[in-house]
Amino acid sequence: MSNLQKEDFSAWYIQTIKQADLMDYSPVRGCIIFKPDAFEIWEHIQEAFNRRFKEEGIRNAYFPMLIPESYFTKEKDHIEGFSPELPWVTEAAGEELEERLALRPTSETMIGNAYANWIQSYRDLPMEMNQWANVFRWEKKTLPFLRTSEFLWQEGHTAHETEEEARHRTMRMLTIYQEVIESLLAVPVYEGQKTPSERFAGAVDTYSVEAMMKDGKAVQAGTSHFMGTKFAEAFDIKYLNRDNEHVYAHTTSWGVSTRLIGALIMTHGDEQGLVLPPKVASRQVVLVPVGPWKKNPEIMEKLSTLRDGLREKGLRVIIDDSSNSPGFKFNEWELKGVPMRIEFGPRDLKNDQVMIKMRDLSEKESVPLDDVLSYIPTALDNMQTRLLEKARENRKQHEYTHINTLDELKEHIEMKKAEGEVPGFVLAGWDGDPETEAKIKEETGFTTRNIPFDPPVKKETCIVSGKPAQYTIWLARAY
Amino acid sequence: MSNLQKEDFSAWYIQTIKQADLMDYSPVRGCIIFKPDAFEIWEHIQEAFNRRFKEEGIRNAYFPMLIPESYFTKEKDHIEGFSPELPWVTEAAGEELEERLALRPTSETMIGNAYANWIQSYRDLPMEMNQWANVFRWEKKTLPFLRTSEFLWQEGHTAHETEEEARHRTMRMLTIYQEVIESLLAVPVYEGQKTPSERFAGAVDTYSVEAMMKDGKAVQAGTSHFMGTKFAEAFDIKYLNRDNEHVYAHTTSWGVSTRLIGALIMTHGDEQGLVLPPKVASRQVVLVPVGPWKKNPEIMEKLSTLRDGLREKGLRVIIDDSSNSPGFKFNEWELKGVPMRIEFGPRDLKNDQVMIKMRDLSEKESVPLDDVLSYIPTALDNMQTRLLEKARENRKQHEYTHINTLDELKEHIEMKKAEGEVPGFVLAGWDGDPETEAKIKEETGFTTRNIPFDPPVKKETCIVSGKPAQYTIWLARAY
Repeated sequence: MSNLQKEDFSAWYIQTIKQADLMDYSPVRGCIIFKPDAFEIWEHIQEAFNRRFKEEGIRNAYFPMLIPESYFTKEKDHIEGFSPELPWVTEAAGEELEERLALRPTSETMIGNAYANWIQSYRDLPMEMNQWANVFRWEKKTLPFLRTSEFLWQEGHTAHETEEEARHRTMRMLTIYQEVIESLLAVPVYEGQKTPSERFAGAVDTYSVEAMMKDGKAVQAGTSHFMGTKFAEAFDIKYLNRDNEHVYAHTTSWGVSTRLIGALIMTHGDEQGLVLPPKVASRQVVLVPVGPWKKNPEIMEKLSTLRDGLREKGLRVIIDDSSNSPGFKFNEWELKGVPMRIEFGPRDLKNDQVMIKMRDLSEKESVPLDDVLSYIPTALDNMQTRLLEKARENRKQHEYTHINTLDELKEHIEMKKAEGEVPGFVLAGWDGDPETEAKIKEETGFTTRNIPFDPPVKKETCIVSGKPAQYTIWLARAY
Repeated sequence: MSNLQKEDFSAWYIQTIKQADLMDYSPVRGCIIFKPDAFEIWEHIQEAFNRRFKEEGIRNAYFPMLIPESYFTKEKDHIEGFSPELPWVTEAAGEELEERLALRPTSETMIGNAYANWIQSYRDLPMEMNQWANVFRWEKKTLPFLRTSEFLWQEGHTAHETEEEARHRTMRMLTIYQEVIESLLAVPVYEGQKTPSERFAGAVDTYSVEAMMKDGKAVQAGTSHFMGTKFAEAFDIKYLNRDNEHVYAHTTSWGVSTRLIGALIMTHGDEQGLVLPPKVASRQVVLVPVGPWKKNPEIMEKLSTLRDGLREKGLRVIIDDSSNSPGFKFNEWELKGVPMRIEFGPRDLKNDQVMIKMRDLSEKESVPLDDVLSYIPTALDNMQTRLLEKARENRKQHEYTHINTLDELKEHIEMKKAEGEVPGFVLAGWDGDPETEAKIKEETGFTTRNIPFDPPVKKETCIVSGKPAQYTIWLARAY
């Protein structure tokens, strides 16, 4: 067995996603092709979020991708934040455009302008829409799924009568992100608030859910922003309130993207390849005939019956009846992360049983044919739960709450490096000074992930200044 | 009642889609906003096609939106056809790009390049993928849903060992388009082949399904293309065949777009507004309390029970308990095309009944409360069937098969105009000469829609030259 994951996590990641046939590079820098096995994961993510959004009364819409430069510049912080990464359309249909058009990096401006037209009175509020769309951020360093020049996401945009309602929506969506990411992708996350330096460009407050990858680095898995009236002022989103006054609406936005696919892989994958949580696996069960099965047609008959029975239960099942050897098949489906493999050959036929191998367990189990239809859904549910627990355990092992000074942090990083271990998440006290934060980053490469709502302990002094800590923060290297 | 639909169909269309809150214009020329009521129609269309595609073994993927100019120019006919409509990205992240990037108008080139990398042997074939994506064609004249600079579509791309298989895929997808468009949208279509002048840029053969709008004009509702080996040669999609030779694959592509939303509206809409087929309506049933219902809480209780019962059956149902008058509500939900309205007030409560008004029928019907849960799904199914039948009848009334010469066609057009009627679809003989076809267009504005597989009659002589007809074609004005 290879040790690549431990020795060179980046190399392991690229090798794994290529071998599992999830993606390919394209002729355009930083833009990848999402192959069917990756895209189907995204479809399951979309389905789960659409269900939750609709329960909240939030409906999908679609807004134009091209944003006129003049719209983009209306909110000062927003343009400053995004301008370094924008691609621009300057010509169309053989003519130079009068005004260049940005490929959307996010749609606050386009949607803000629309909301300003649509919202007249408090009766029009709340206005709450979501869109699934491609967005562009011309990044210098790209990494498949985690950071690409074009990516897919959902972006929700809402406008409300009061700050209280808008803040409630902001927090509610963060909770939905946490719940779906943990229950669907089995990726545990920390909810918290971003520090001012890590805020979304133009937001009053940004909140995030942060996940820890197997190499101890962080992935920001979803963000939810309270905009106050900043975008309402920039786009003139005013409404007639219950006291007959024209006032600004309070807006929010929130999004998750295809980087969740990357987070999923880096959380569960192992030396054998992908490990997919059953809920998002495009193939939950693969049935593999073994032994001299071609001589005995009863084997394929039983397997076909089993497949049909499982499909009736709504499970995603395939039979691999190719002419490859069982060993080749086992390896291939492990690489692709299929949660459950069922082996069935002449001996199993005689014993009225199947052999079941779960992707995340090392032992096979024999299950009587009579029980198998009820056994399988439960076994998949158990694997889903187990993956989340394992990821929680792994996170706990790479979380450090005892570090009190910058020197201790540097020592910690050095020590972990020497041990061939990952430095993980470090809990620190912070005095709230942005210069302090900048110094941590400069000297260690660690950045503030968020100010967790529920830190394991409360840190009393700032890791840099030694002053009383205003906040307890998670520090980590991040993707 | 207004006569706008008959008198000024274009004005009726714009008024209807605005009043029904389906769309809004955007600051970018020709790019519209798909508001939730329109986008949900698209979601139902996506769902229906995804189910059919998956039954065919075709999976979804996602390819980059930006296409390098050098890729775009590899197939000569392709670039010639699309180049007049392309928007170009020339700058990104503050720098001029070395090679400009087109916003995809379609993805044959991007996907052709990928398939060339992925296909090595006949074992890799067929390769069949679909993507749902935004595409761009910088049109001079735009019309919401029917022709916009950015639109949404699905594009399927397949590669095959043999011409026969590729042709089979091409025809199979056309049939799926016909079946889904007729059964889901209740829009009848004619299947047929495009003439060479109307072919997709780079195709060997293009097939289409053509629908007739209420103003007699045609909408090309879906197309399916057999590419032969043209794109395979341009992108070097070669594979090792069963005889161990390197040969070119045969490819296809096929698509339907958000113009189906426009076709749906122009097929079923009436003077009162939208008429939505139940299968794609975001609200299939609206429950409206009438009379002094606020004084009698039992009315809302019964309505809530009814709503819950219908939702359990999987129907999309709302109660309008706003303080607007019943007349206002009736009007609003008719405008929005809700298939079924149920009125329920004190008198109905006493009589244990509800009053049901179907959007496409003029009479209301009273239905006993005890029967209503079984009555409603059937009534919606019947409406779905009825809309398709009505559209077929309407089409039949505006189809002309008796016209034999260009002069007769001109007379026909003049006469219909004088009668305030629409000139509709005209069946004509054609000698197969592109100059003949160009002359029809030039002198009448009618274009060839397609060469129907199953024309109502076979025309014997060419409408222009009087020579023996090689083909029987549908002529019409088109969107």
